[in-house]
Amino acid sequence: MTRASRIPLPALERLSTYVRSLMELKSAGKQTVSSREMEELTGVTAAQFRKDLSYFGEFGRRGVGYNVCDLQSRIAALLRIEAEQPVLMVGAGNLGSALIAYPGWNAYRFRIAAVFDNDPQKIGGEVRGLHVYDAGRIVELNAEIGSQIGLLAVPAPAAQGVAGALVEAGVTGLVNFAPVKLDTPPGVRVRQISFLRELAVLSYLIHQD
Amino acid sequence: MTRASRIPLPALERLSTYVRSLMELKSAGKQTVSSREMEELTGVTAAQFRKDLSYFGEFGRRGVGYNVCDLQSRIAALLRIEAEQPVLMVGAGNLGSALIAYPGWNAYRFRIAAVFDNDPQKIGGEVRGLHVYDAGRIVELNAEIGSQIGLLAVPAPAAQGVAGALVEAGVTGLVNFAPVKLDTPPGVRVRQISFLRELAVLSYLIHQD
Repeated sequence: MTRASRIPLPALERLSTYVRSLMELKSAGKQTVSSREMEELTGVTAAQFRKDLSYFGEFGRRGVGYNVCDLQSRIAALLRIEAEQPVLMVGAGNLGSALIAYPGWNAYRFRIAAVFDNDPQKIGGEVRGLHVYDAGRIVELNAEIGSQIGLLAVPAPAAQGVAGALVEAGVTGLVNFAPVKLDTPPGVRVRQISFLRELAVLSYLIHQD
Repeated sequence: MTRASRIPLPALERLSTYVRSLMELKSAGKQTVSSREMEELTGVTAAQFRKDLSYFGEFGRRGVGYNVCDLQSRIAALLRIEAEQPVLMVGAGNLGSALIAYPGWNAYRFRIAAVFDNDPQKIGGEVRGLHVYDAGRIVELNAEIGSQIGLLAVPAPAAQGVAGALVEAGVTGLVNFAPVKLDTPPGVRVRQISFLRELAVLSYLIHQD
């Protein structure tokens, strides 16, 4: 098991959710926001929102609300997403293509620096306007790019090999969509995304009443 | 905010993870499993695994391990995934197509009963061997299917409308991939999947040291 995070993971997930809503408020030209409005936007209760902000010490003023820009920068700084970060995307199939097209990359200041695949039919082509490189070149190309984050949108049997290449290339954080537990050296963090697990959780929730 | 779950969500997520590994062990003909082996398979520590099983009362025997089949059925019964459940998939684009092709639907006994889209070019066609129906027919067709679970693999601007149709059709649980908070009536559960949020969490984790 990976070592603990200083801020509990559920709090980190909520903070990431807030940051997105704050970005949207900022784009819409809104300068202050109340915890009640944040509840409307995120689905996280106003009480939980105020509690989560205690990670920064107190800085909201009752009745005035929070400064959108200030709050957004503080959370972004905490999550270390204030500067642009290059991300490597491995897998140019349906899933990879859907992820590339997903809105919001820019809100979190992630940039897809390179897309890789091992399918000769895809290598050298484009997906959503991005060039597809040979997955055999991950180490070589990341020497230039210097990305620390990799996304695995590959079939389960390929995932471990890809993870190995990404780690060799200097990546220390992986988001894995393949339904397989990745073996990685200590110091490498993996976030596993499994929508079937979410469906199973949902099944419990809708039947518990 | 939705009402609380009787079993904490992180525990439900771990239980869903165990059930998948147990299915795989069962398929491989394995009859017993130790908490240490489960740690290898799932990445959840043996101690946490044993603790999670306390939701069922004690039934492992020290040194003997757990009966794979028995444990799998107990967890499946708890999560209410022991009987096959039909699921409605809305969105037949890249993401929907990737989700349909995702391995493991059967392990959780979910079955994609119908795929919907609003694109005239897709309606009447097939995606991964499944017929694509007009999204305008969700209510009509679910009167027959009786699904309680819907997956939203649609663009953000379409998500709220689709959610409304699914709820009208009798769905009480939604898994939403669109980066938008869905407004749903009380009693409807929503699980939000956001890989960009996971990337932001990852950014914190890899930089915290």
